[in-house]
Amino acid sequence: MAKDFSTREENYSKWYNDIVQRADLAENSAVRGCMVIKPYGYALWERMQGALDKMFKDTGHSNAYFPIFIPKSFFSKEADHVEGFAKECAVVTHYRLKNDPDGKGVVVDEDAKLEEELIIRPTSETIIWDTYRNWVQSYRDLPILVNQWANVVRWEMRTRMFLRTAEFLWQEGHTAHATKEEALEETRQMLDVYAEFAEKFMAIPVLKGVKSENERFAGALETFCIEALMQDGKALQAGTSHFLGQNFAKAFDVKFTSKEGKLEYVWATSWGVSTRLVGALIMAHSDDNGLVIPPKLAPIQVVIVPIYKNQEQYDLVCNKAREIYDTLKNSGIRVKLDDRDTHKPGWKFNEYEFKGVPLRIALGPRDVENNTVEIARRDTLEKGFYQQADLLNKIEHLLENIQDNLFHKAVTFRESKTFYADSWEEFNQLLDEKGGFIYAHWDGTGETEQIIKEKTKATIRCIPLNNKMTEGKCIYSGKPSAQRVVFARAY
Amino acid sequence: MAKDFSTREENYSKWYNDIVQRADLAENSAVRGCMVIKPYGYALWERMQGALDKMFKDTGHSNAYFPIFIPKSFFSKEADHVEGFAKECAVVTHYRLKNDPDGKGVVVDEDAKLEEELIIRPTSETIIWDTYRNWVQSYRDLPILVNQWANVVRWEMRTRMFLRTAEFLWQEGHTAHATKEEALEETRQMLDVYAEFAEKFMAIPVLKGVKSENERFAGALETFCIEALMQDGKALQAGTSHFLGQNFAKAFDVKFTSKEGKLEYVWATSWGVSTRLVGALIMAHSDDNGLVIPPKLAPIQVVIVPIYKNQEQYDLVCNKAREIYDTLKNSGIRVKLDDRDTHKPGWKFNEYEFKGVPLRIALGPRDVENNTVEIARRDTLEKGFYQQADLLNKIEHLLENIQDNLFHKAVTFRESKTFYADSWEEFNQLLDEKGGFIYAHWDGTGETEQIIKEKTKATIRCIPLNNKMTEGKCIYSGKPSAQRVVFARAY
Repeated sequence: MAKDFSTREENYSKWYNDIVQRADLAENSAVRGCMVIKPYGYALWERMQGALDKMFKDTGHSNAYFPIFIPKSFFSKEADHVEGFAKECAVVTHYRLKNDPDGKGVVVDEDAKLEEELIIRPTSETIIWDTYRNWVQSYRDLPILVNQWANVVRWEMRTRMFLRTAEFLWQEGHTAHATKEEALEETRQMLDVYAEFAEKFMAIPVLKGVKSENERFAGALETFCIEALMQDGKALQAGTSHFLGQNFAKAFDVKFTSKEGKLEYVWATSWGVSTRLVGALIMAHSDDNGLVIPPKLAPIQVVIVPIYKNQEQYDLVCNKAREIYDTLKNSGIRVKLDDRDTHKPGWKFNEYEFKGVPLRIALGPRDVENNTVEIARRDTLEKGFYQQADLLNKIEHLLENIQDNLFHKAVTFRESKTFYADSWEEFNQLLDEKGGFIYAHWDGTGETEQIIKEKTKATIRCIPLNNKMTEGKCIYSGKPSAQRVVFARAY
Repeated sequence: MAKDFSTREENYSKWYNDIVQRADLAENSAVRGCMVIKPYGYALWERMQGALDKMFKDTGHSNAYFPIFIPKSFFSKEADHVEGFAKECAVVTHYRLKNDPDGKGVVVDEDAKLEEELIIRPTSETIIWDTYRNWVQSYRDLPILVNQWANVVRWEMRTRMFLRTAEFLWQEGHTAHATKEEALEETRQMLDVYAEFAEKFMAIPVLKGVKSENERFAGALETFCIEALMQDGKALQAGTSHFLGQNFAKAFDVKFTSKEGKLEYVWATSWGVSTRLVGALIMAHSDDNGLVIPPKLAPIQVVIVPIYKNQEQYDLVCNKAREIYDTLKNSGIRVKLDDRDTHKPGWKFNEYEFKGVPLRIALGPRDVENNTVEIARRDTLEKGFYQQADLLNKIEHLLENIQDNLFHKAVTFRESKTFYADSWEEFNQLLDEKGGFIYAHWDGTGETEQIIKEKTKATIRCIPLNNKMTEGKCIYSGKPSAQRVVFARAY
């Protein structure tokens, strides 16, 4: 048990920051709002990238790369987009420094002012649709199924590592289609990909739904999302998939000749997830002993710690440990053997527990004698002795078991935090005392949504897909409502 | 043969641009000097990334991510670094746009001016060493072996796709060590990694060497490089590995307590390769029929084109083609079956030839009958009929053969373009009439090097490692020289 860091109960927010820092995931940098993603945190992101990238490619997408700079004028081309975006962003105005004539250091060379300022992409719809214009002439050129892994910048005033930073890493898919139906199908397909990734890899159950108009992406006709629940009862939007209609095609004049020979505007989608998912992962599973990582995403799945008192024991134990290491590694398990003699076993136990390594194997001289190992599970903290025979199978089985257990624990937690509110009082009481997802009737207007948000800080997370139609009255306005929507306070 | 594009002989520079564009590798964007890397070009870069990333990890490195922004003052901290760098770069001065009060569009919000300007990283030594200060206290914290895959910006005035663009993608390794010897060893190790990658994957032979002082990285004590030769006889620097001594540790105050309890400055290296390698790949192997890609890096290694005249034949041929496709794909070969009926076989032949796909399998009704396929090699343009039996082995063998052939062809070419000049006249004549690598004596001074560069546009590419010591006289100054160095005109 790590004593010098906060528990969830004491201070959830500090608990989160402590984990990020003490598990070596990330740290603040010298640049306001920008973080450094440390090797262990980045390895986690690489695992996520690898799984997502494969899913994107399996659904026919290719990666490409577009410029980080967007000419300022591009933002004005799509009216809703400029309203919803592009205000808090990094603006490049000059392209040269010079030696300070008055002394040391460098200053901006005022002679090197750009004619038109460049914006660092907060998202790439505009520069990409400006490019697609040249890629599309005929229906034969469609669909375009492209994804980009990139850094983006949004000048956030209040930042928090992984959850909200000025610069962050993400992927943004941008597809172009001949028909509305095909574009809508793509939007839904990518929502399904995100949901599958969240549940199967991150072990986080998610609600799939559609955003209300107020919460829609700037420039989209429809925004689909997956919503996850964190341990403090707050929701976190884990991914979005937008149906953009013909808005960007019209703004950037992207037309194609249809099979029937008619000139038509192209239909668009975009979809993205970001390093925010690392924050979601931390908050979904970790406990008061530190980080907990599902085995499928763990940079280290198994750590082997040798226990010894002298050189003779060290040689004996490490010999066997290396044998086990080789067996596991050769079968594709991400295993680490920590045979450093600069740190004691107890220190190592704490270290890997804190870093969320799913399985720890401890091996001492008596284990070598008895052909046993001690295995500790990070999720349940259970320890047990196992025969070395057939160890690979046992490890594989345990890893699967941990993956399943984390998911089911998260499902159970979400169920315990899912409520139905039928009055304004009940709604407020649930929000303040329980948190979680609250299903409640809403009159469908942006005004009511806005008032609810101002009064309670709760927002409509989504209107779930395949939602049950049940008539009722809006919890705030009392006006008629055809279905419940999901409210929560959110990250 | 594609007739409407330049040959190397006619116009080498246009030939290069034609390949980049017509093979769908990249195109210019709306932003000056920035390119769009199209899916096929990006797939090539992904193959390179994958191979390099594995080599970095196999040598103990981890990936991490540091901010894209660098505070302006950081550049002034290392004196040589600021002299050699940081002048032509993108400067962020504001962090907000606002609606233009006079009409449409957006303008920069002058109220949102940064106190200190931020520079978009042209390279990350400064921000990384500012970070390392907090990572290092004791010798136990060393070495730090970190790599970053990132975009960087250098405001180049004359740009050329892949070879020189304002924004480009690269990796930059930044390591920290307890001793000079260890840092030097790391510098050399990464040079070897780059050389191995160039020769084994890119099939490009490279000279390993050290740069003269004039050509050294700004802030380095020693810059090692690999130099490749392009088909027009110009050299291309394909990767660099820098020994930075304690310069950045001193500039950013990064000290550690040694085993002996003494406080010492940390030793540093940095090393990088970029999307420039894609340009090198194109120029090393391609011919007047388009792109040629070595099999190990080819996004598509084998393309299968069915030949048919009617639906019955289509069904028959595609059936067999899918069988072959499955066999190859299941064995890890990157194979594509182009069974589109919107394009004729001849069009497809040209298309994949132009895109440099190493092997093309053509399959018609008679082949199905005879259990044969026709296979065409992209490197030699040879065609032949093969029995379908044991096709996988034949394909694997052919791919290996093409990889080897491209490398040996490039070695032979380089040999034919390697010269020794013993006088100023001979040197100039070789440069103008032959190009290539010219081994010549040099008096070792930066002044002479600079004059030679101004008079001939040739630079010292490197002083080869393990260079033979042979006394002679500098081709320009006539002063004594202990060894020949390698001159060339370069990209």
